[in-house]
Amino acid sequence: MFPLNRWYVAGFAWELADKPLARTLLNQNIVLFRTGSGEVAALENRCCHKSLPLSCGTVENSGVRCGYHGLLFAPSGACLEVPGQERIPVKARVRSYTLVEKDQILWIWMPQEEGAAPTCEAPDYPIHSDPRYTFRGDVFHYDAPYQLIHDNLLDLSHLGYVHLKTIGGNAAVHMNAELKVEAAGDQVRVLRYMPDSVPPPTYLGAWPFEGRIDRWQEVEFKVSHLNIWTGGADVGTEDMNDPQRGGFHMRGFHAITPETDTTAHYLWTMAANHHPERANVIDLVYEQTALTFYEDKVVIEAQYENMKKHPNAPQIDIHVDVGPNRARRVIERLIRDNAAPAAALSAAAA
Amino acid sequence: MFPLNRWYVAGFAWELADKPLARTLLNQNIVLFRTGSGEVAALENRCCHKSLPLSCGTVENSGVRCGYHGLLFAPSGACLEVPGQERIPVKARVRSYTLVEKDQILWIWMPQEEGAAPTCEAPDYPIHSDPRYTFRGDVFHYDAPYQLIHDNLLDLSHLGYVHLKTIGGNAAVHMNAELKVEAAGDQVRVLRYMPDSVPPPTYLGAWPFEGRIDRWQEVEFKVSHLNIWTGGADVGTEDMNDPQRGGFHMRGFHAITPETDTTAHYLWTMAANHHPERANVIDLVYEQTALTFYEDKVVIEAQYENMKKHPNAPQIDIHVDVGPNRARRVIERLIRDNAAPAAALSAAAA
Amino acid sequence: MFPLNRWYVAGFAWELADKPLARTLLNQNIVLFRTGSGEVAALENRCCHKSLPLSCGTVENSGVRCGYHGLLFAPSGACLEVPGQERIPVKARVRSYTLVEKDQILWIWMPQEEGAAPTCEAPDYPIHSDPRYTFRGDVFHYDAPYQLIHDNLLDLSHLGYVHLKTIGGNAAVHMNAELKVEAAGDQVRVLRYMPDSVPPPTYLGAWPFEGRIDRWQEVEFKVSHLNIWTGGADVGTEDMNDPQRGGFHMRGFHAITPETDTTAHYLWTMAANHHPERANVIDLVYEQTALTFYEDKVVIEAQYENMKKHPNAPQIDIHVDVGPNRARRVIERLIRDNAAPAAALSAAAA
Repeated sequence: MFPLNRWYVAGFAWELADKPLARTLLNQNIVLFRTGSGEVAALENRCCHKSLPLSCGTVENSGVRCGYHGLLFAPSGACLEVPGQERIPVKARVRSYTLVEKDQILWIWMPQEEGAAPTCEAPDYPIHSDPRYTFRGDVFHYDAPYQLIHDNLLDLSHLGYVHLKTIGGNAAVHMNAELKVEAAGDQVRVLRYMPDSVPPPTYLGAWPFEGRIDRWQEVEFKVSHLNIWTGGADVGTEDMNDPQRGGFHMRGFHAITPETDTTAHYLWTMAANHHPERANVIDLVYEQTALTFYEDKVVIEAQYENMKKHPNAPQIDIHVDVGPNRARRVIERLIRDNAAPAAALSAAAA
Repeated sequence: MFPLNRWYVAGFAWELADKPLARTLLNQNIVLFRTGSGEVAALENRCCHKSLPLSCGTVENSGVRCGYHGLLFAPSGACLEVPGQERIPVKARVRSYTLVEKDQILWIWMPQEEGAAPTCEAPDYPIHSDPRYTFRGDVFHYDAPYQLIHDNLLDLSHLGYVHLKTIGGNAAVHMNAELKVEAAGDQVRVLRYMPDSVPPPTYLGAWPFEGRIDRWQEVEFKVSHLNIWTGGADVGTEDMNDPQRGGFHMRGFHAITPETDTTAHYLWTMAANHHPERANVIDLVYEQTALTFYEDKVVIEAQYENMKKHPNAPQIDIHVDVGPNRARRVIERLIRDNAAPAAALSAAAA
Repeated sequence: MFPLNRWYVAGFAWELADKPLARTLLNQNIVLFRTGSGEVAALENRCCHKSLPLSCGTVENSGVRCGYHGLLFAPSGACLEVPGQERIPVKARVRSYTLVEKDQILWIWMPQEEGAAPTCEAPDYPIHSDPRYTFRGDVFHYDAPYQLIHDNLLDLSHLGYVHLKTIGGNAAVHMNAELKVEAAGDQVRVLRYMPDSVPPPTYLGAWPFEGRIDRWQEVEFKVSHLNIWTGGADVGTEDMNDPQRGGFHMRGFHAITPETDTTAHYLWTMAANHHPERANVIDLVYEQTALTFYEDKVVIEAQYENMKKHPNAPQIDIHVDVGPNRARRVIERLIRDNAAPAAALSAAAA
């Protein structure tokens, strides 16, 4: 069960070139493609004739052509051609999804009811076109349910143990840093400031700090994705409360899209500014970030593997779980809300 | 469920040398071997003592010896020796199957009732000894149920999409070619003639055509196997209705033997004639055919994988499905016929 | 179901260095480690916070620290530290097991009731410190239930078929050798003497025999492990009934610890004496033994794989099964005894 009637990230613009792309999203078997005329589209990844994945086919100007007997489907899901016969059977169509390309992000609307139109605009992510930043990204696959990744991203205290050698630094500093958790509507914010601390290796590689730094970590949970804004400035030089503060900035976009009940896609970009006296550090930042996320992946997959071995084992809560638990309550409420209309209907009928 | 009381292809003569061969056929775990005295045999692949596969053992003059404690079994399934003791327990025997070696094909009789004798002769396949042809073959394993391979072989229209670069050629030519489907008894024939068409790459490699060709594809479905006769002749030079026509001929033997309900063995040979002015092209034909079958395997396995994801999804029919659907009805009827005596018996008892 | 309230072998002393070790024993997910102060310990391999395996963490002086959020656990299972907070939650503890290091063997007490203390001392294995012998060992994993390995070790007649090229030698000699089976309490002994026989290749490599040898094989089954004493002496030079007999001696320690219902750990050492005129042969003996065990592993795993394909197939008994069957009856009785108190209680309640 996932929150529905929402936009999820299906992929990135650069993933759709001249080949269709198979991607399961929220248990739905989907093919993403860009037609020869540039339109992006998402269809059920199954030809309605003999069930071959359409992702095994080819992209044409007007749609995707099946690789078995050549049926051609438009972005709308309508079959445009059945090679060798003139009549197109009435039932020759596949389910289509609303897919929007925006800020190089491919947003897909996942409705509760098949075919229902979006009820709001796809989210903005202006960082991708902000001239102060350059960015790179990637798509990771997790053998773990999506909420374990939320937990991980909303709890920055694990940095000291999992990421000691990259963005972590000193464990005690992380665990003892002041932590603020704010929630409003469907959003949760976890804020942590570590004044006068030692810059971690990635920061030192990216920015010419003079010595100790004031460091911030601001995590915004927005159901389909999280924005994580981290950075640091030479100690005492910047006002941590001012969003226009200087120093080194890393702006992470972290979309966690469930693949199935037990697996997830982690679609991320990392944007960074760069110091005028240093070469653009985006490749370094990308590599360090990918390495960090891989460290997380190892831990989260081992955690889930172990949870399956102990299906009924209780877990205890500690102080760092406040943010993750808030987000879990949001998801729980959204799923309940999705179920509510149906429940109300059956109550009325009874 | 498979049609029973029939001959199926278990393997090829050249597969049985000095080692026993494990092969699951119609859900039955079987060991095939050739005794030191040259007899071919098929037994249940399980020693009746400690269940080791007999295929882990060794072949001797009189049978196969288990690789754990040395029990020796004759082609009849009788235990000939229990090392270290004189008395052979009454229950020391394993199930045996009738296996016949004919035209380099190993035919196994799969009876409905364990141990029942064949009620007819094993099929002939004279092409393997026809001096006009040379042949080579192989055994492919499919992670897909056997009937999906029937569908594929009886529907030659997929050539234009799946085999574009080998035996396919122009898709539109394939899809628009005249198609005849004939059925009689348990057999289905699909015939297609493509006069005045461009020869595909494999043909050009094998035969010195002068330009465009008259091309034929004749598919005979015979339940346990299909014979596919394809070829081409310089345009207007041969009578397509004359089986003695000249030109380039490929004679495919395609035995599809179910391994389990969801997997299959594809045991095939391809025979070809060769032009007097060209070297024997059988190695080229074999390699191109293997490549082609591999293209099919990729598609069919992807198709089945996708069918499992959509277990109740409807499929639509198009014109090319006439042949495959006929064959499916034959299989359905044969399975129903196998079930009938039992059903009749229980009806009588009630 | 396994016999409980017993010592099992969890590992060897040399396996615990500076990293924790994950090992499932009797279906229980366990982490073994040696603290910085040298104490060995066994805990449930799951942090009580977020379920990460503790084996992904690090070893410290006072215990093992979780690799996710840094919780520190003592050998007793008590949580000693939750980084970032002062209060340690009452429920912050993990199950602990009694682990004893003795003769370089790690013995774990597997109680029927969680946390119950051992009711006897861990077994002795003095061979590991006997100056006449040197030894080496290893841990093998089997995809087969533990009792199939008992069967194998208690039935030495398979040597002639499975180990022909290593310790086996002539099959007929093995099958026809006199066999004695003795049982007392929970122990089973299988004794076999092969006077005047040809020494197998491993023996010849290890000892300067003059020609034919008197050979012995003495197998002691002790539920959690077997001691197998094999060897040989120049024909007619030693009294086979005298434990102080000379010649070449191999003393095998074979602990079979169930991992799950269908998989097992095989923890073994092989000790050998060496002839004064030959270099120490322990490396040769170790390599040959490992090779031999690998031959067994291949057979036993193939056997189990095949048993799964034929879940209800009967097996026949032959003369060599006397020893294995005795051991199976011991295990059966021990499991029944474990179940008895509970059964008695519910009978009383009814």
